Amino acid sequence: MRLFISRGELLRRRAAALTEATRRGCDGLVLFGPTPIFYLTGFAFIATERPIALTVTAAETVLFVPRLEEEHAAEYAAADRVVAYPEYPADRHPMLRLAELLTAMGAARMRLAVDGDGYPGIMGYRGPRLSEVLPGASVSLARDLIEDMMMVKSEEELALIRESCRWGHLAHQLLADYTAPGEIESEVSQRASADATKAMVRALGPTYRPLSWTAPGARAGFRGQVGKASAIAHAMTNNLRIQRGDVLVTGAAAAVGGYTSELERTMIVAPISAEQRRFFNLMVGAQDAAFDAIRPGRPCSEVDRAVRAFFERYDLMPYWRHHVGHALGVGIHEAPFLDIGDATEMRPGMVFSVEPGIYVHGFAGFRHSDTIVVTERGFEMLTYYPRDLASLVIDR
Amino acid sequence: MRLFISRGELLRRRAAALTEATRRGCDGLVLFGPTPIFYLTGFAFIATERPIALTVTAAETVLFVPRLEEEHAAEYAAADRVVAYPEYPADRHPMLRLAELLTAMGAARMRLAVDGDGYPGIMGYRGPRLSEVLPGASVSLARDLIEDMMMVKSEEELALIRESCRWGHLAHQLLADYTAPGEIESEVSQRASADATKAMVRALGPTYRPLSWTAPGARAGFRGQVGKASAIAHAMTNNLRIQRGDVLVTGAAAAVGGYTSELERTMIVAPISAEQRRFFNLMVGAQDAAFDAIRPGRPCSEVDRAVRAFFERYDLMPYWRHHVGHALGVGIHEAPFLDIGDATEMRPGMVFSVEPGIYVHGFAGFRHSDTIVVTERGFEMLTYYPRDLASLVIDR
Repeated sequence: MRLFISRGELLRRRAAALTEATRRGCDGLVLFGPTPIFYLTGFAFIATERPIALTVTAAETVLFVPRLEEEHAAEYAAADRVVAYPEYPADRHPMLRLAELLTAMGAARMRLAVDGDGYPGIMGYRGPRLSEVLPGASVSLARDLIEDMMMVKSEEELALIRESCRWGHLAHQLLADYTAPGEIESEVSQRASADATKAMVRALGPTYRPLSWTAPGARAGFRGQVGKASAIAHAMTNNLRIQRGDVLVTGAAAAVGGYTSELERTMIVAPISAEQRRFFNLMVGAQDAAFDAIRPGRPCSEVDRAVRAFFERYDLMPYWRHHVGHALGVGIHEAPFLDIGDATEMRPGMVFSVEPGIYVHGFAGFRHSDTIVVTERGFEMLTYYPRDLASLVIDR
Repeated sequence: MRLFISRGELLRRRAAALTEATRRGCDGLVLFGPTPIFYLTGFAFIATERPIALTVTAAETVLFVPRLEEEHAAEYAAADRVVAYPEYPADRHPMLRLAELLTAMGAARMRLAVDGDGYPGIMGYRGPRLSEVLPGASVSLARDLIEDMMMVKSEEELALIRESCRWGHLAHQLLADYTAPGEIESEVSQRASADATKAMVRALGPTYRPLSWTAPGARAGFRGQVGKASAIAHAMTNNLRIQRGDVLVTGAAAAVGGYTSELERTMIVAPISAEQRRFFNLMVGAQDAAFDAIRPGRPCSEVDRAVRAFFERYDLMPYWRHHVGHALGVGIHEAPFLDIGDATEMRPGMVFSVEPGIYVHGFAGFRHSDTIVVTERGFEMLTYYPRDLASLVIDR
């Protein structure tokens, strides 16, 4: 069992990226973002104040890293060469060293497609633009180049996302098993995450690599959406104590070879009020409206439009807070978006979260999120957790 | 007990930022980064594809958020007004709406100090620069403005960082208690993190707000630096099984009101080899050399220089991988850096990690990290975990 992207696929991606750069009139790519670098090399790393840059030309692919990542990159990255610089800021700025490397690679006068004109300002980093240190090159912003490639997932990617769904499911089931009145949200969450990760690590064995900085395995939790705070779509945890009658909005996922998935559910701690039941069922109806609108060849906007029509029909617009969903895979959010403003055509292999939410301020929030893949004929659910209220009531 | 920054301090920061912007010839600030926005408003949020911007002028401070953050921001952010836009991308790009807001605020022709000319490309976001949507304004990049303010910590900030150290200490002590041959790294880590968070939440009570997206409390772990992989300074977890004779490099912290600290230790599972003992003691010696060089009024570079001299003296340069440390507080890494290339003067109130490491590829890595604050006379250790080998051996 291989739970990471094969070298063959990484090399195909690299070739495709270069072909697209060429089509756009460029001779090569210089990428600074951790996500595009991971996508083309398989190298997952902690992005810090120390720049990392991937250069792809027809002649070679070179990963430029700080000294502390040299052996790590050499072990994991599909690149022809890893070139290390000492440190940031050090006695010579890494961007000047990158310019030297690019010059030695014959790229000093190339037309370069880049995901940013220099390294972004992460963790206190400051530095010149690439176009400043390499004035003879022509630098053209093409953040969309890799993002567009990432939109349609391959079979290998789908396999990792499916694996992520499996263990996110377990974490969520344990979360539901452990949730009870009187429990503190973080404790339930940490217990479920630990037990699911324990099972996952034992089930998958040493072939399993999370390739994630933040997650050693599976996780599930509430992130603060407990009781009235469930109405805050992006709450932060306050370690609230769960009470009878609370609405809980959950989230679960697992890191598998650098890929993720998204499973969210609205659970209600008994007794359930009529008003809670009504909003819960409307939320499920909104999600059904979204599912009904997913079809290859249609624009992403139509899914959001269908859900907004549902909201209008049931007088829910005062409770509307966000679009229906987003692509995901390497990132927890990726483009395109299931949003009235996104005309991108849904294509087979695109993976989306589908998660319209109803948020009644001062009362409760209601949101399920499922991960789906668009298929030739419609879509397939990758998450498979029950969505009905009877399955999601906590009654103990 | 208040475990978050007071409104009074937030308002003082805002006034100081505006004063500095004025000194630089600007009429106001527009900030897009989550860290500077948190620093000036106390509002911690999940940065997504949806832009968030803080505008500060002499007349008012306005936080521009997506609809899904409106109530959340209204509850937490120290701002005169919260203005919400529907969604990204939606039918009208948020940057165009921000331009309308700035125009209504009278800022359309102002000289604006910004931390970026537009919203950074997070999670698939694409959009125009601020200077494109507000062509009458003069936009001047001043990322250093807030970063420089953040360098010297106030008493309130130090109190939160001290609190973070306390619970990071507990998490690390539990990690040491639970570490044993045969255990899987993530399991030890999750157990220690859960138990420490449980104690922390109960000890601090409902006044405690992590104000962190990723951490509900305290945590400790290995992040993959287990056995031979301890030589990879920024490894990622592979859920290795801990074995006798393994060198382990740990990390522990706790989120307190949006602030953090850093405690890292090298632990060795008995039996300890002579070579391990030698490198361990050299690493402690290198950290002592760093401590000896920390004094207000000196440049940061001198600390790194002192450690490099120590490395040279003991023929350790083949095992050198990174500078001595970095500032921290809101960010896990902040500027300035204890690095030969950073001439910033150490001033009382600056908080640094001190963490020179020795990495012997194929054998083991050795690193302690302590959090210190520069004082009028020298420095004070904020972490207080034992550093000697006898205290850090795992023998069970």
